[in-house]
Amino acid sequence: MKFNCELKKTVDDSYDIEIGRDLSDMLIEDLKNGLVGNITRYVVVTDSNVQGLYAVPIMKKLEAAGFTADMVVIPAGERSKTREMKEYIEDAMLEKGCHRDCCIIAAGGGVVSDIAGFTAGTFARGIPFIIYSTTLLAAADASIGGKTAVDTPIATNLIGLFYQPKKVYIDINTWRTLPERELRSGLAETIKHGCIGSVQLFRFLEENIEKILLGDDYCCEYIAKMNCEVKYKVVMKDERESGLREVLNLGHTVGRAIETVSDYELLHGEAVAIGLAAQVQMGMRLGYISLKNAQRVTDLISRAGLPVAIPSYIDKKELIEKLYTDKKVRGGKLRFVFQKEIGDMMCFGENVYSKEISEAYAAEIIEKM
Amino acid sequence: MKFNCELKKTVDDSYDIEIGRDLSDMLIEDLKNGLVGNITRYVVVTDSNVQGLYAVPIMKKLEAAGFTADMVVIPAGERSKTREMKEYIEDAMLEKGCHRDCCIIAAGGGVVSDIAGFTAGTFARGIPFIIYSTTLLAAADASIGGKTAVDTPIATNLIGLFYQPKKVYIDINTWRTLPERELRSGLAETIKHGCIGSVQLFRFLEENIEKILLGDDYCCEYIAKMNCEVKYKVVMKDERESGLREVLNLGHTVGRAIETVSDYELLHGEAVAIGLAAQVQMGMRLGYISLKNAQRVTDLISRAGLPVAIPSYIDKKELIEKLYTDKKVRGGKLRFVFQKEIGDMMCFGENVYSKEISEAYAAEIIEKM
Repeated sequence: MKFNCELKKTVDDSYDIEIGRDLSDMLIEDLKNGLVGNITRYVVVTDSNVQGLYAVPIMKKLEAAGFTADMVVIPAGERSKTREMKEYIEDAMLEKGCHRDCCIIAAGGGVVSDIAGFTAGTFARGIPFIIYSTTLLAAADASIGGKTAVDTPIATNLIGLFYQPKKVYIDINTWRTLPERELRSGLAETIKHGCIGSVQLFRFLEENIEKILLGDDYCCEYIAKMNCEVKYKVVMKDERESGLREVLNLGHTVGRAIETVSDYELLHGEAVAIGLAAQVQMGMRLGYISLKNAQRVTDLISRAGLPVAIPSYIDKKELIEKLYTDKKVRGGKLRFVFQKEIGDMMCFGENVYSKEISEAYAAEIIEKM
Repeated sequence: MKFNCELKKTVDDSYDIEIGRDLSDMLIEDLKNGLVGNITRYVVVTDSNVQGLYAVPIMKKLEAAGFTADMVVIPAGERSKTREMKEYIEDAMLEKGCHRDCCIIAAGGGVVSDIAGFTAGTFARGIPFIIYSTTLLAAADASIGGKTAVDTPIATNLIGLFYQPKKVYIDINTWRTLPERELRSGLAETIKHGCIGSVQLFRFLEENIEKILLGDDYCCEYIAKMNCEVKYKVVMKDERESGLREVLNLGHTVGRAIETVSDYELLHGEAVAIGLAAQVQMGMRLGYISLKNAQRVTDLISRAGLPVAIPSYIDKKELIEKLYTDKKVRGGKLRFVFQKEIGDMMCFGENVYSKEISEAYAAEIIEKM
């Protein structure tokens, strides 16, 4: 005997990303105007760095607007992205009496939005959440794609959900309070976006990199928006990471490995910068990018104050071994994605954007860097 | 500056529920025929009771078919539905080298499918899962609706997901190995389904309850199918629990409270049976059900070998206090759902299926039970 459980439906997870300076008043207005329905209870999830700067002011404005607001603070840093920390947030919410009718506001960078989004996605089987983004890296990375996750001792980003926010606020004012090294690090993903999807963005960076680092209004808003556009273009065509989405992994094969081998001495963006440089050198020898364009990429990375060479303290043998933990590895073989000149990606077949590269070939490039 | 992230799409989560005897060979055939694509790696999640009876045979058949198969066993019982146990399953999967390309087979009752489904939903942001259901209660409850969850020390079923299986197998052969008390307990949810949505199912139970308890083929398949139909009808109209889905809560207001106060001495179905009887008595006095039909409900419950009175060891004052932890409570007021005669539900307004009941009124009925 058979019963067919017919479950077809149309879902609309569309949302707006607002880019500008000091957007907390707009956030409050949006909530008053029903951004998340008639919910009156909010939980601001933030980290110890962002708490005083941006989370407390948002809390005060929520309360002034007559909403119930609670705050949950996690320690700043990648090490907070754990299942235990998710439980900590859940328990704090339950103790405060939160049920289905509440909404999470993630105020912070990528770690905060990753864990807060995951928590929202499984609290009472899904409550709404909003991202108030305070870093360039998060603006480039966490605002689009719906990826939320935590790490486990043996796996990065493997436990999580695709879960979309109701709205994202990219407050470029907050970039001013970033340590300069972190601001530069955030630019690596922006450069990557230029490489994979927009020669226009790449040229803009070439022309305005110094102004961006000085916090120029228009320049910052422009790159925030272009980051969204490039990532959206990729993610929309491949929401479940079947193929195309691998292009977002440009520079991350070597990047992630070197980040780990450096024991997180290198910031994520710094490691990705080195990975971008490595990919460009391989791509040049394989004929995917001209010498001139390869030079443009490494020049831009350098002008952003990011590394293009492997620091001497990195054990290159260990680095090469680490490459095999990359998620693109298939059948024990290394795979890389490559940019096609500037603003486009190499495609190696229908929906195939990564190419098998022998260890010897990868090692040869790495040895010289 | 604004960027609109347009995310509309059609999703098809439809799946089949197969009802019959000894369906493990069919499961293997379905996998060979691409039920979950070209996945070749399976993780059978089961509990210590089901392991030897059904999980090991499935493992052997998977291996004989050339698949990679691993088994993760959790202790039998409601106490396994925790976040820690979910982590235990995740860690076991990661240690065995599972990544995105694997599928979970939940072999067991409701606890197993709840936690295995939740684990599947967040592993690598969602891997497919299949339910091989081995209890009448799970067949009635866990096969439709997509609810997965774990408990925390202070909240039941509050951390979880809506996540649909790829297929459900209801192996009625497994009901034979259930302790008789559990089989009877499972019938409470079936009787509930008759009360809320199918006079036809209710009559069938009246006519065949003894044959069902003896494990008659046709009767068991029929009630398994009718359970699916009634639940599907309700869940489809209200996937996100906005209103109608509350009708599935019939008998659970008093039921859940008494289950807790008995310190789980009473099985879930036994507690629900008492709750159904309580609801019928209130409904009769409120004019929602005739004396004759009320009698039919309590008679059927009794014939199934389930209680219709509150055991003497239950502290009725404590029970009444416990009613306030019900999720239907609004503004500190108790709310109940009621059947309308047999096979239909009382509706108290547009999308309103629960009605406020004073504590005094509820207490009066409970005192007499």
